[in-house]
Amino acid sequence: MNMNAARGVPGKRERLVVIGGDAAGMSAASQARRLRGAGELEIVAFERGHFTSFSACGIPYWVGGDVADRDRLIARSAEEHRARDIDLRMRTEVTEIDVAGGRVRARDVDSGAESWTSYDKLVIATGARPIRPGIPGVDAPGVHGVQTLDDGQALIDTLARTRGRRAVVVGAGYIGVEMAEALINRGYEVTVVNRGSEPMSTLDPDMGRLVHRAMEGLGITMVGDAEVTKILTGEDGRVRAVATEDAEYPADVVVLGIGVRPETALARAAGLPLGSHDGLLTDLAMRVRGHENIWAGGDCVEVLDLVSGQERHIALGTHANKHGQVIGTNVAGGYATFPGVVGTAVSKVCDLEIARTGLREKDARRAGLQYVTATIESTSRAGYYPNASPMTVKMLAERRTGRLLGVQIVGREGAGKRVDIAAVALTAGMTVEQMTSLDLGYAPPFSPVWDPVLVAARKAVKAVGQPA
Amino acid sequence: MNMNAARGVPGKRERLVVIGGDAAGMSAASQARRLRGAGELEIVAFERGHFTSFSACGIPYWVGGDVADRDRLIARSAEEHRARDIDLRMRTEVTEIDVAGGRVRARDVDSGAESWTSYDKLVIATGARPIRPGIPGVDAPGVHGVQTLDDGQALIDTLARTRGRRAVVVGAGYIGVEMAEALINRGYEVTVVNRGSEPMSTLDPDMGRLVHRAMEGLGITMVGDAEVTKILTGEDGRVRAVATEDAEYPADVVVLGIGVRPETALARAAGLPLGSHDGLLTDLAMRVRGHENIWAGGDCVEVLDLVSGQERHIALGTHANKHGQVIGTNVAGGYATFPGVVGTAVSKVCDLEIARTGLREKDARRAGLQYVTATIESTSRAGYYPNASPMTVKMLAERRTGRLLGVQIVGREGAGKRVDIAAVALTAGMTVEQMTSLDLGYAPPFSPVWDPVLVAARKAVKAVGQPA
Repeated sequence: MNMNAARGVPGKRERLVVIGGDAAGMSAASQARRLRGAGELEIVAFERGHFTSFSACGIPYWVGGDVADRDRLIARSAEEHRARDIDLRMRTEVTEIDVAGGRVRARDVDSGAESWTSYDKLVIATGARPIRPGIPGVDAPGVHGVQTLDDGQALIDTLARTRGRRAVVVGAGYIGVEMAEALINRGYEVTVVNRGSEPMSTLDPDMGRLVHRAMEGLGITMVGDAEVTKILTGEDGRVRAVATEDAEYPADVVVLGIGVRPETALARAAGLPLGSHDGLLTDLAMRVRGHENIWAGGDCVEVLDLVSGQERHIALGTHANKHGQVIGTNVAGGYATFPGVVGTAVSKVCDLEIARTGLREKDARRAGLQYVTATIESTSRAGYYPNASPMTVKMLAERRTGRLLGVQIVGREGAGKRVDIAAVALTAGMTVEQMTSLDLGYAPPFSPVWDPVLVAARKAVKAVGQPA
Repeated sequence: MNMNAARGVPGKRERLVVIGGDAAGMSAASQARRLRGAGELEIVAFERGHFTSFSACGIPYWVGGDVADRDRLIARSAEEHRARDIDLRMRTEVTEIDVAGGRVRARDVDSGAESWTSYDKLVIATGARPIRPGIPGVDAPGVHGVQTLDDGQALIDTLARTRGRRAVVVGAGYIGVEMAEALINRGYEVTVVNRGSEPMSTLDPDMGRLVHRAMEGLGITMVGDAEVTKILTGEDGRVRAVATEDAEYPADVVVLGIGVRPETALARAAGLPLGSHDGLLTDLAMRVRGHENIWAGGDCVEVLDLVSGQERHIALGTHANKHGQVIGTNVAGGYATFPGVVGTAVSKVCDLEIARTGLREKDARRAGLQYVTATIESTSRAGYYPNASPMTVKMLAERRTGRLLGVQIVGREGAGKRVDIAAVALTAGMTVEQMTSLDLGYAPPFSPVWDPVLVAARKAVKAVGQPA
């Protein structure tokens, strides 16, 4: 059957091709299938790896032992997708998109066999690839990334074999700090080596400093302002230390947690539009700009930051799932949009909770916004209630207008998800003055009578009112 | 010195009189003092009880043993207020407001001595009084309210003296369920007798039923559809049982947790405007309607419900503190408003968390709104993460427009404060469709990849799209 012939002809069965079998791609496929039966829409999905629809965000907890086994991280298996009439081809890598011809070339990873598949509609969900520093020794046994389930399994196998108990984590962003927790939980002595002066560069440095101190309090050795220059190996070829310009840190295992970049080599080769972060550019319906029948979503796209009005790259499963939902609806002939993000993220290291939404100081400057800041300390519960834990809340507001620009929170239990209050307020374009009146849930086990976010808003109101 | 003579004369020292020394009154006094020094503004505050600025919401946790002693519930003592140049007169009850004469009559509770005090500006913060059923035996030893610190102390003294271990709580609203937890924590067998069929009438009955079952699971005996007709006493005059029309429930101690009404007898006698809930009516600056120099706040006022556009009475410390802040600012010549509430409340019974915001089904009907509902079950964390606890979220949205109308949540740890997401969305007037795109904090220890509130919003969108 030549599907090309059917393209665009009403009433004919169309073929949707999906590149990438993870959150965005398979959400799109599933949603399209929900709305259009197999008689109307054929769905072919290509996945180069061994797994579909898995939670990459869960890998640190699997490595750390909080999640008992790998399969718990798989939301929906290849078999389950196939049972819903999705022709899912595993271990099959798309090597070329022929936009003019409306077809993709795919290669069976094991056999090397290649073939073309035509499409009427195409979804690109190629995800992101971890940044690997181009330094000597980075490919040595004992050095691990944690992007895929295969990566996670390899790390777990190494941990099971390794006698030594010294681990070095390179990078102190979300992945780095979560892996630090995982290795602590596995009984390792953990050193985190970070390029910046403070961990969590998604926070302002003053808030990062709180994370720094708290992580040291958890027994983690924090090394800042340090560029890793080399991974040193022993006579057996395995990793034995991580070297910076100034020092060497002995390591029985090394985890790379430096971050990711959009996986857009295919899209670039096909001439599709990429932004300044190398992510695909789409409209709000997640259609690739200038291409009526191609959509893209998940970690391979750039998203609109609703606060700054600029494009950003954020690799996060929650966005990928939303993209997939929107794409699947549109592919099936419905209407949905992804309006953008405010940049919310939450993480934890043992009992330390870290959250942020909106703009940091440097984001605000970059966007040309003048701002004021307010930082307060409060507690998660009424001060007199047991286990009231301290938290620090930093708030940014636009000068003159008082519009909320961002919130960062560092605390313990009950701190992290409070960022949602600010995430909704940012989305709604609220001012900090408006926020002071928010009717938030109050009872002594849940909050002080003034929720910490309200305390920060009150202080920010005063800062907005000060002369410049 | 005749302060009346100074009233309204610029540059002269004015006198502010505050009736009620708790959250609203003393917040107002403190804020006014912060903005105006003692040379400009004299502040006289009358409190009929023994304590100022205490957390009534904390009493159940003090009775239950979570809070070690009474003084921890006092945010600021009388001495602390006096040190800030507030002439605070304890155990002094205002017995009359002479609006025309601009003065109040106060009586020393201990000596009975009365005197008039003139005011330039008046703040009424007389709070609420607990509802006491007018039934035989309600004043018997062993029957307790829990409105004031004196009430709490009396109950604690009774519990210390009582040998028996059977407690009956009358009423299954917030106070009732929190007192049930307190008594469980003290080792009592607890029976809750409730007029309605389900506990927590601030929820819809279908959500109340979940609370009902969960409380039974905690070992609490729940008696619904039961009107208490009599408190039975023993030969010693102490309580021995609570009687309904159908049954008797043996009780060594009885706690009344039926709710409160605005304490507005003084205001009524003075001819000040009251609403349909007997609360004082104010404008958004918290000025009593029609009275330029009288403000009112806290549990004695009615507040605007921003969702229904109707007035409500909600006795909650978080509102009282905000009212005080607004009143103090306005009294001092500044400008602040309290725009209204969306009706957020959160509570817990042992590990059960209960939250609500916005309108219940019957509120929506009463307001003339047509609505759809969506109820979903999800978990507090990613399903594969340890201690992911189930929660049920019910969402109401307006038919056709899809505007969010209300959310109710029943779950365990991590459920309650999620209501804040909906509280902010309600304040912003968001639709459930808009909510599906909210960028909420996600990581496996904090949330499934679709936060439960988003799952509910997605289901509500579908319900809005159905034909009526």
